[in-house]
Amino acid sequence: MSIAAIANRKLDEQLLEAELLALGSKARAAARTLALAPAVQKNAALLAAAKALRGHAAHILAQNQKDVAAARDQGRPDSFVDRLKLTDARIESMARGLEEIAELPDPVGRVSACWKRPNGLEISRVQVPLGVIGIIYESRPNVTSDAGGLCLKSGNAVILRGGSECVESNRAIHACLKEGLLAAELPDTAIQLIGTPDRSVVGHLLEGLQGSIDVIVPRGGKSLVERVQKDARVPVFAHLEGICHVYVDASADLEKARTVVLNAKLRRTGICGAAETLLVDEAGAGRLLQPLVRALLNAGCEVRGDPASQATDARVIPASESDWGTEYLDAIISVKVVSGVRGAIDHIEKYGSHHTESIIAEDTAAAETFLREVDSAIVLHNASTQFADGGEFGMGAEIGIATGRFHARGPIGVEQLTTFKYVVRGDGQIRPA
Amino acid sequence: MSIAAIANRKLDEQLLEAELLALGSKARAAARTLALAPAVQKNAALLAAAKALRGHAAHILAQNQKDVAAARDQGRPDSFVDRLKLTDARIESMARGLEEIAELPDPVGRVSACWKRPNGLEISRVQVPLGVIGIIYESRPNVTSDAGGLCLKSGNAVILRGGSECVESNRAIHACLKEGLLAAELPDTAIQLIGTPDRSVVGHLLEGLQGSIDVIVPRGGKSLVERVQKDARVPVFAHLEGICHVYVDASADLEKARTVVLNAKLRRTGICGAAETLLVDEAGAGRLLQPLVRALLNAGCEVRGDPASQATDARVIPASESDWGTEYLDAIISVKVVSGVRGAIDHIEKYGSHHTESIIAEDTAAAETFLREVDSAIVLHNASTQFADGGEFGMGAEIGIATGRFHARGPIGVEQLTTFKYVVRGDGQIRPA
Repeated sequence: MSIAAIANRKLDEQLLEAELLALGSKARAAARTLALAPAVQKNAALLAAAKALRGHAAHILAQNQKDVAAARDQGRPDSFVDRLKLTDARIESMARGLEEIAELPDPVGRVSACWKRPNGLEISRVQVPLGVIGIIYESRPNVTSDAGGLCLKSGNAVILRGGSECVESNRAIHACLKEGLLAAELPDTAIQLIGTPDRSVVGHLLEGLQGSIDVIVPRGGKSLVERVQKDARVPVFAHLEGICHVYVDASADLEKARTVVLNAKLRRTGICGAAETLLVDEAGAGRLLQPLVRALLNAGCEVRGDPASQATDARVIPASESDWGTEYLDAIISVKVVSGVRGAIDHIEKYGSHHTESIIAEDTAAAETFLREVDSAIVLHNASTQFADGGEFGMGAEIGIATGRFHARGPIGVEQLTTFKYVVRGDGQIRPA
Repeated sequence: MSIAAIANRKLDEQLLEAELLALGSKARAAARTLALAPAVQKNAALLAAAKALRGHAAHILAQNQKDVAAARDQGRPDSFVDRLKLTDARIESMARGLEEIAELPDPVGRVSACWKRPNGLEISRVQVPLGVIGIIYESRPNVTSDAGGLCLKSGNAVILRGGSECVESNRAIHACLKEGLLAAELPDTAIQLIGTPDRSVVGHLLEGLQGSIDVIVPRGGKSLVERVQKDARVPVFAHLEGICHVYVDASADLEKARTVVLNAKLRRTGICGAAETLLVDEAGAGRLLQPLVRALLNAGCEVRGDPASQATDARVIPASESDWGTEYLDAIISVKVVSGVRGAIDHIEKYGSHHTESIIAEDTAAAETFLREVDSAIVLHNASTQFADGGEFGMGAEIGIATGRFHARGPIGVEQLTTFKYVVRGDGQIRPA
């Protein structure tokens, strides 16, 4: 690079940083307005944005075509192009999603606890928005609408940084969200999209834009989440992977176990709540192992098993050590015989990702031990791991699932995008010496 | 430094790191045991530790004498030596503190929410410990006992790193905590103290000891907290400073205002909930300003005021811009006339530290605006800011006060040292396609 080119690049970087800091300040200012906006106003913005999505569907599809064509030109795989591609149905689904968010109860201002002190002070814990949320995501343009809507409902400003491969689609969707905000007389800086493809943007966001970002939510593949968790200087809500287990206890009802295991693994293989490992109690293996393994194989699932599992069917492939820590996100499952509920808990402690695990058992004591001792965001008894989803929990739409231990654990819905403050009402009370 | 010395130092650093990582692994293992320990066992450990503190009081005082003598030799100021110095009364107060923690309800296993889904799934949110807590503190040896006790009660393992100036006192107190753990048959690695004075220890703790520390709580002066907040790669519960405000509205009752302002500023000037700035509504300044300023001056408080305040009494010193952002922690207050509740909110937004603010007003509408719009962990109406304390909130002892927005905001008591998991009970439910 010539000295002039280096100097230009340095200047570009400084300009980018200044621009991003300005954007952060605008987000912070918008957050203050949004935090105090009444529910009706936020809901009006959501409904107007849904209407704009439907009204501008043709434009959104045309812009999306540009992204799709570019992805094809770059030789991206079909699965990539499929994630990127919008259709009328997908746009309708985004619009409907915003309407459903509008129908949720407003999480802001909710009194989550209140009590009175002997001295007469009345203390309430009142939910308030987190502030400014940064979302870093990859090739699904619907995240622009879903994340924008959830942040708006919860009274937070949001800075969206989508993948460069869907920048045209994201811009078109973002224009609809801004239209919604303005129609409800809210600042359109409440939802900002960073369109520039410059890769150093992410680094600046992870630094928090000098205090302008309160939390980062990464949405995308493992390498993205890994980088965000490693480099972020602000809190992160995320899960790196979902290595979810189903443990079938000796006391399990076989029919129930078969139904749940098939659903947990195969209903959708690409979601984080899909089961990746089946653990079977050695005390019940004679009765349970072969039927479960064969049910999976017959349903088209590849089975990678320990020696006991291999002995049940010739189609079982030997599992290697690395299988126990692999999130396949595909029709593949690892199967292992363990020594009762204790063996299952130890295996999960060693290889799991603290996401979601299920025990299938008729023995309540075994189930309660599992539910108590497994250290995951979600533990289930006699139910499919695929329930790991904010909607299935009755929380409404979610922005993701967190496996960290702080603040939001499990599905991150609008309630989890709030924090609280203590409001204390008195009548002149002072603290005695 | 000679090459040999450099090589030795490098070796020392590697040894230290290996030792710290081993300590982290032990803490993680102990955390798993402690998370599942029943309340009676944890309480037995607390009571046994209290007994040990009383039983070994003479030894603790003798060890403390060494720290005190060293501090005097180093020419430390009297206030420093006073914080360091233990007495029989202070040891009794530590022992009593542990007994009070034992009396608190157990926060672990509490069902903080539960609901049933239309498909019959029963979802509970159950409180579980955070894991391993790192406490970095300065010269108050009672933190060893208080923090150890709070972490134990909440089922967390803890790694304590006290100041090198009280290492002998901390070791003696820590021995009593270990005695309590062992008496209750709990692992003594649940409460570990790092005694080595090596300054690089803190850096390793802030990195999280390769995933062995879940959260860091700094207890000490501003420079310590600042460093922890800047360098920590794990979550931090802290407040950098408490620039707390009392705003006296035009509608305020003068007598109430006088009583609360004097208490908020002067009851104890060195605590983070002490008021640092008095804001007076311009619409009521004629009636309120002079009596309030004079009450403070007459009580021995230095007043640094804006021009309006200066006009009320010759003893008022002109305030400079930096006064509005200063936490005096002393008998000094800054005073300013503002334009109503809006002016107060804007001033607090600009100069405050999101800790604790109070409005004195008889006008409920003004009070509710203040309570709603001031973005602090604690907001009060007609009450002293000195109530910012876990004990005063009825939460029991606290490990500190957090001004961050995540997880624990305000007083950090045993409940705030827990997180939750979702426990889902079903009867074979699967998720429909």
